[in-house]
Amino acid sequence: MKFTIKFSPIGKRAMENRPRLLLDIAREAGVGLKSLCGGKGKCGKCKVIVNPANEPTAVERNLFTQDEIDEGYRLACRTTVREDTQVYIPPSSVTEKQKLQIWGKEIEVKPSPLVRKFFLHLLKATLLDTKSDFQRIKEELKRKYNVKVESADSKVLNIIGPTLRGSNWSITAIVRGSEIIGVEPGKRKKESFGIAIDLGTSRIAFYLVDLLTGKSINIYGVTNPQIAYGEDVLSRIHYAGNTKTNLKKLKSEVLKAINLAIKKICRESKVKRVDILEVTLVGNTAMHHIFLGLPVKQLGRAPFTMAANESLEIKTREVGLEVSPGGYIYLPPPIAGFVGSDHLAMLIASGIETKKGNLIAIDIGTNTEIALKTKGRIISCSCASGPAFEGAHVKYGMRAASGAIERVNIDSKSLTVNVATIDDRAPLGICGSGILDGISEMLRVGIIDSSGKINPGYRGVRKIKRGKSLEFLLAKKGRREITITQQDVSEIQLAKGAIRTGIEILLEEADIKTQDIDRVIVGGAFGTYIDPLKAIRIGMFPEIDIGKFTQVGNAAGIGAKAILISQKLREQANQLAKRVEYLELATQSNFFKHFTRAIRFPKSQRGKV
Amino acid sequence: MKFTIKFSPIGKRAMENRPRLLLDIAREAGVGLKSLCGGKGKCGKCKVIVNPANEPTAVERNLFTQDEIDEGYRLACRTTVREDTQVYIPPSSVTEKQKLQIWGKEIEVKPSPLVRKFFLHLLKATLLDTKSDFQRIKEELKRKYNVKVESADSKVLNIIGPTLRGSNWSITAIVRGSEIIGVEPGKRKKESFGIAIDLGTSRIAFYLVDLLTGKSINIYGVTNPQIAYGEDVLSRIHYAGNTKTNLKKLKSEVLKAINLAIKKICRESKVKRVDILEVTLVGNTAMHHIFLGLPVKQLGRAPFTMAANESLEIKTREVGLEVSPGGYIYLPPPIAGFVGSDHLAMLIASGIETKKGNLIAIDIGTNTEIALKTKGRIISCSCASGPAFEGAHVKYGMRAASGAIERVNIDSKSLTVNVATIDDRAPLGICGSGILDGISEMLRVGIIDSSGKINPGYRGVRKIKRGKSLEFLLAKKGRREITITQQDVSEIQLAKGAIRTGIEILLEEADIKTQDIDRVIVGGAFGTYIDPLKAIRIGMFPEIDIGKFTQVGNAAGIGAKAILISQKLREQANQLAKRVEYLELATQSNFFKHFTRAIRFPKSQRGKV
Repeated sequence: MKFTIKFSPIGKRAMENRPRLLLDIAREAGVGLKSLCGGKGKCGKCKVIVNPANEPTAVERNLFTQDEIDEGYRLACRTTVREDTQVYIPPSSVTEKQKLQIWGKEIEVKPSPLVRKFFLHLLKATLLDTKSDFQRIKEELKRKYNVKVESADSKVLNIIGPTLRGSNWSITAIVRGSEIIGVEPGKRKKESFGIAIDLGTSRIAFYLVDLLTGKSINIYGVTNPQIAYGEDVLSRIHYAGNTKTNLKKLKSEVLKAINLAIKKICRESKVKRVDILEVTLVGNTAMHHIFLGLPVKQLGRAPFTMAANESLEIKTREVGLEVSPGGYIYLPPPIAGFVGSDHLAMLIASGIETKKGNLIAIDIGTNTEIALKTKGRIISCSCASGPAFEGAHVKYGMRAASGAIERVNIDSKSLTVNVATIDDRAPLGICGSGILDGISEMLRVGIIDSSGKINPGYRGVRKIKRGKSLEFLLAKKGRREITITQQDVSEIQLAKGAIRTGIEILLEEADIKTQDIDRVIVGGAFGTYIDPLKAIRIGMFPEIDIGKFTQVGNAAGIGAKAILISQKLREQANQLAKRVEYLELATQSNFFKHFTRAIRFPKSQRGKV
Repeated sequence: MKFTIKFSPIGKRAMENRPRLLLDIAREAGVGLKSLCGGKGKCGKCKVIVNPANEPTAVERNLFTQDEIDEGYRLACRTTVREDTQVYIPPSSVTEKQKLQIWGKEIEVKPSPLVRKFFLHLLKATLLDTKSDFQRIKEELKRKYNVKVESADSKVLNIIGPTLRGSNWSITAIVRGSEIIGVEPGKRKKESFGIAIDLGTSRIAFYLVDLLTGKSINIYGVTNPQIAYGEDVLSRIHYAGNTKTNLKKLKSEVLKAINLAIKKICRESKVKRVDILEVTLVGNTAMHHIFLGLPVKQLGRAPFTMAANESLEIKTREVGLEVSPGGYIYLPPPIAGFVGSDHLAMLIASGIETKKGNLIAIDIGTNTEIALKTKGRIISCSCASGPAFEGAHVKYGMRAASGAIERVNIDSKSLTVNVATIDDRAPLGICGSGILDGISEMLRVGIIDSSGKINPGYRGVRKIKRGKSLEFLLAKKGRREITITQQDVSEIQLAKGAIRTGIEILLEEADIKTQDIDRVIVGGAFGTYIDPLKAIRIGMFPEIDIGKFTQVGNAAGIGAKAILISQKLREQANQLAKRVEYLELATQSNFFKHFTRAIRFPKSQRGKV
């Protein structure tokens, strides 16, 4: 009786055929789980969420609350696994940080934030001048700075009086548009910060920004804790769409993680949380909807209708963000059910509006969003590329964490395989870029043919255990072997085929030829680490001159930051969202024609270097 | 050792010189306190808040929570009083309702509320028409009703999707200005209600209004529970200004009472609370500030600066009102520290803008607000008339509750006194209009001279017990006697003198003579029940032809209702608030000249009828 243990968020799998201690399985699989007491049940460091979970032991009952017990919190060193099991490892139990791909190519943005601070020294009220405190501030803002204010946050009105009287009538007013969102005693002009958040399905990236200079002070990433409730967007939508409690749970989990991260970043950078005056957040439409508590059930079924596609600005306190109490969170609009505001932010960061020629912007993930700009049109689509590039549905797949194979080279004569792993550790599995590399190399040396079939008779090709299909051995370390199976190849064919289909349909819609493309911008964590040449080689991208590719990293995050500090870009994003034409691939009559072609590999790769 | 027991909110006092059971004292004083078990400590009906409170008995410990015990909740039948004691009787313990003067002269207002409902039957989303749910509603509102909507309440976005899909795409959209504040399944156009609240220092009046017809469906009044923390505005300001906790307490007390009242009114009128789409609230500036949690300390000391004098519109859920979750409460602006939005509402209800000639509008209370309209100017002031007209600081004074003397007639020959009481009960005390009547009559028959001195030698005039000064016996029932003392006369002189001073200074400021006044509008509970002739006789009002007086009742409430149903009047109120010139009496050099004259009574009243 074989069973599988899935570790999230690391995306690692282990197989067992007899009951074993979870801590041992995790160690053997190379999952970096903390344990100080050596598995004696004393330190409590190896806590995980297990599903299905054993009856808790006395030690666990002692350590966890009833709620935690019910949620499946257990100690890995006290848990014996006997069947298919999901194991979620909370960040606190991980020995090493995952490689959180939050780097992004910074762009020059002239800061013109919507929130500004003004220092005011006011005349004290007298019996001959009894105008209200708010009126007094309003008039001085107009007189001294020519700033017209119309309203004040209701909570700010509560503190104006005492603040004025406690600071000898010298205050700093925080103004957002025509609203006063805060007052502080004395001169505090410099303490003006903002946070841009890129809320991804797996990762949340944070940019702490000085609103006056527009510079990033701190960049930080955490795993999206919702991953415990489903690895990809669709399973998240399914879970959240099931009951209101589930939606609330996902919402509160992510909010908690965001608040915790903001706390940490602020402490690291010696910034007070109340000085975070504005927040922007981008994400795919499901993440956006869940964060706001919007209904997502409808996102999971045709016709995938969004609840709202407006830009939203909401008081941070209403959302539950622990920053300046009068501040706002601004969420640029999503474009469609599967083209989120993160894609919009990427388009802003790529400067798509200002660049000339025909341009493709592509963000690869479980869903891949593609935009084509040509002849004044911007057309976008979303392809269900699946989670293979994130390491899922691949036998030895894992996320881009320590020990993941990320580069593969096969000598075309000896067929000797060389792999490079993240952090140069002994190989634990393969991440997305490693798989793409591996398959591209297998194709080049002839191990795979253009239909995707693994050819028997090559060195390293063998039958999988207890099965008929073939696999290719990539790496071996002691008893641990890592292979790419026929099934893995098929998964990648589906994934890259979906992406290529999207590109081809966009080109056909716009009546553009491959050679007319002037620029391809590739964003996203995975997109940043792939080798575009190899992506072309497996047919994921069309044959475009390699010099036309730019890899921009987490452009969504950079876009969120741009929208945070620049009113102009914020307005531009709104206009852009309205301009972008969304193309629903499922309704295109040429979809299957393109797709059946796109899942094949290009011919005659053999001999290429 | 004599001590006093003060009963609030009824405003009754009792004196004792030996320890006695509170229930007995209350009964003897005519305070209608419930008791079903006859004082055996079993029914719990005679619960009161006592300060200082005895150690609780076992019965009380059992009946009340620790919080309640700490707040001073006790049973009157278990409480022995030994010293000066404040007793607050909660509404639930009162046998008879106080006369809550909430009647107001209705005015014709064409309804044009800011909140409107629209029925929409939408096209179902398809793969070829995937626009967001919100977008769909927006476009249909524009197409069908030419209504332009820009945003939606963040909580409404959460329910649009399920509402559409659960109602076969037929919904009612609730639109306020350019915001969608609610969606409901099916056709619910008629369920459009609003509540106007007049938040007074002693009374809160509610008007449940049908927004479509503009008609009042229900009118209701409750005692302001803050009265337990101080009877007049200044003591309330003092209490709230002391600590933030106090302010919060006052705020939450009044909020609780308002929510309870709304619940009750809605149940009575078979209206769902979620169908209350808009609320307006007016009140004096301290009540307004406390309701919003604005700082009030500064209202209690010169120069009496308001925190804010803008009109405010706040989500009801942010304020804590339990009505339509997306709805707003609208608060028209206060005019000055002691001229609140209730006065503004009164001016709107009086149609001051449309009436020609020289007009005085006056709202009598602990503070009396007066506005003079002449030659295109509107000048207002506030006079500290004190609480005498509300029954406080008067020996036998009480509020206008059952058993209060409200009319007095003295036969000029026999000096026989006839009194009329509220509900024709045996006299318990004197309310404001009764005192004004009594003093006016004493003046007419010569018992008081123009300096205010009570003349000895008249029938009914005698020395007060254990004192030298004089008093006049109004009524006697068994052992209970009710008198007007020299001290009472002085209190009324101060009160009416303050009001007259305000009128005179306004006239002088505007350079108007008494005979040029075309109309006097008298509002407020007290103002409605007084006899203007007698008010002229004691010099509270100048000698103006009695035909020029109009008593409008609770005009503040009527104004709040007008502002609820009419956008035009709401805008008019905002303009008016800016136009009204506030005159601070304390800075007027002619104040003392007028005041010393105004506290005297007019001469030669003798012989008038």
